[in-house]
Amino acid sequence: MNKPQVPDFLKNIRVVLARPNHPGNIGSAARAMKTMGLTRLYLVEPKVFPSEEADTLASGAVDVLQTATVVPTLAAALADVTVACALTSRRRELTTPLSIPRETTPELIARAREGEQVALVFGNETFGLSIEEVEQCNRLVTIPGNPDYFSLNLAMAVQVMTYELFSHTGVNVDYLKPDGNSATQGEVDGMVDHLDATLEDIGYYRRRNSERMIRRLRTMFHRAGLLREEIDILRGFYKQAQRLAGKGQGSTPDVEDDSTS
Amino acid sequence: MNKPQVPDFLKNIRVVLARPNHPGNIGSAARAMKTMGLTRLYLVEPKVFPSEEADTLASGAVDVLQTATVVPTLAAALADVTVACALTSRRRELTTPLSIPRETTPELIARAREGEQVALVFGNETFGLSIEEVEQCNRLVTIPGNPDYFSLNLAMAVQVMTYELFSHTGVNVDYLKPDGNSATQGEVDGMVDHLDATLEDIGYYRRRNSERMIRRLRTMFHRAGLLREEIDILRGFYKQAQRLAGKGQGSTPDVEDDSTS
Repeated sequence: MNKPQVPDFLKNIRVVLARPNHPGNIGSAARAMKTMGLTRLYLVEPKVFPSEEADTLASGAVDVLQTATVVPTLAAALADVTVACALTSRRRELTTPLSIPRETTPELIARAREGEQVALVFGNETFGLSIEEVEQCNRLVTIPGNPDYFSLNLAMAVQVMTYELFSHTGVNVDYLKPDGNSATQGEVDGMVDHLDATLEDIGYYRRRNSERMIRRLRTMFHRAGLLREEIDILRGFYKQAQRLAGKGQGSTPDVEDDSTS
Repeated sequence: MNKPQVPDFLKNIRVVLARPNHPGNIGSAARAMKTMGLTRLYLVEPKVFPSEEADTLASGAVDVLQTATVVPTLAAALADVTVACALTSRRRELTTPLSIPRETTPELIARAREGEQVALVFGNETFGLSIEEVEQCNRLVTIPGNPDYFSLNLAMAVQVMTYELFSHTGVNVDYLKPDGNSATQGEVDGMVDHLDATLEDIGYYRRRNSERMIRRLRTMFHRAGLLREEIDILRGFYKQAQRLAGKGQGSTPDVEDDSTS
């Protein structure tokens, strides 16, 4: 399976950092964004920018810093935006709807896909977003977490929010899966029948409840999600046991010689 | 609404860091865990521990470091565990099932709720998990992200995975919502009827298609998710406009005097 592409519409979603104090956080935020396919960073009145520290923490995401837009006000960062989400973890006496990332994200993705500009707005490390900044946004988003210790730092919040966004793009990790060869129910049943015959042949069933036993094993093997190669290995093993017992040749017609025997 | 409690069963889910190199990452991971209600940290052969750097980066989560368990092998960290998830971002030629956090998490929560011990296993910062380490786990979990730049650092991966876990606990952020007073459809309709009368009274409808206009406004107000207080403000405004036009007294029987008039 080929490596999937990051969807193009993610370029319509920007991250806005309002008045960030620490250059390191700008770098870490850039890195977090890029891991989740976002590239457009807006910085409102950054205390220090550009900086070596930001570049260092951005690691392979220095390109995000190099193309970042520095603006003097939040309004400037949001001028062409239709939906601006204020990330906040405080109770606010505002009538702007409050939701969690998982609820908000599908709408953001849909709007970005239509070509609308969407912003995720994060406040200063110490003070968060001011009331004036929040009022310029039309959504409040709160990341759920431990009510007694909610201490997500800035870059962590960017990471969680962008992860949530990315998880709704439909880009999956299937390209990392090895080429599986799942066995069918029929193949599993054939293998269990072979096991049943083997247990009989080698005398394991004597004075035991063979029916109950094989039923349990059948359930176990059906649950295990077997691959075809594993079935081959198991059947090779059974065949060998049958041979040692002087049985089995021709007794299970669906068994073929294979390399494991 | 009261602040919710972190569910007790989260204590059955541990984070295992295998051979972490950088003390700072141990501290950041502890902080990430605690923000999502996890407290049990296992460290397999940490290069440096305890350390001042870890304590500094743990911020308010030093208690997680103080109660951390240091073990010499991954096996020791997993001895009493039923489900161990190996966090990995590489393609592995293994038949262990690979899934994303959102797929895996409901099962982990269900098992922890039943009292089983669950582990999230993270590898070394540079090398990830070794093949021997992955083989001791019965799940592979990959965080989805940019296929061309997948550079989540250790603490970020812990943050994303524990966020995903927490999001399935049912602990929500409703306690942060202001006490809303959503208007009913009937209240919205009453307000729009009042607006309709007002527009008539002040002569705004002359030579305009009043029916089409009020229909559009009605749709807009129904969409806006109005609160009761907002309806009071609007009706106060309409009443004042009606008075200026020498109209309105008694003409809209459902309007009552209120503080805004």
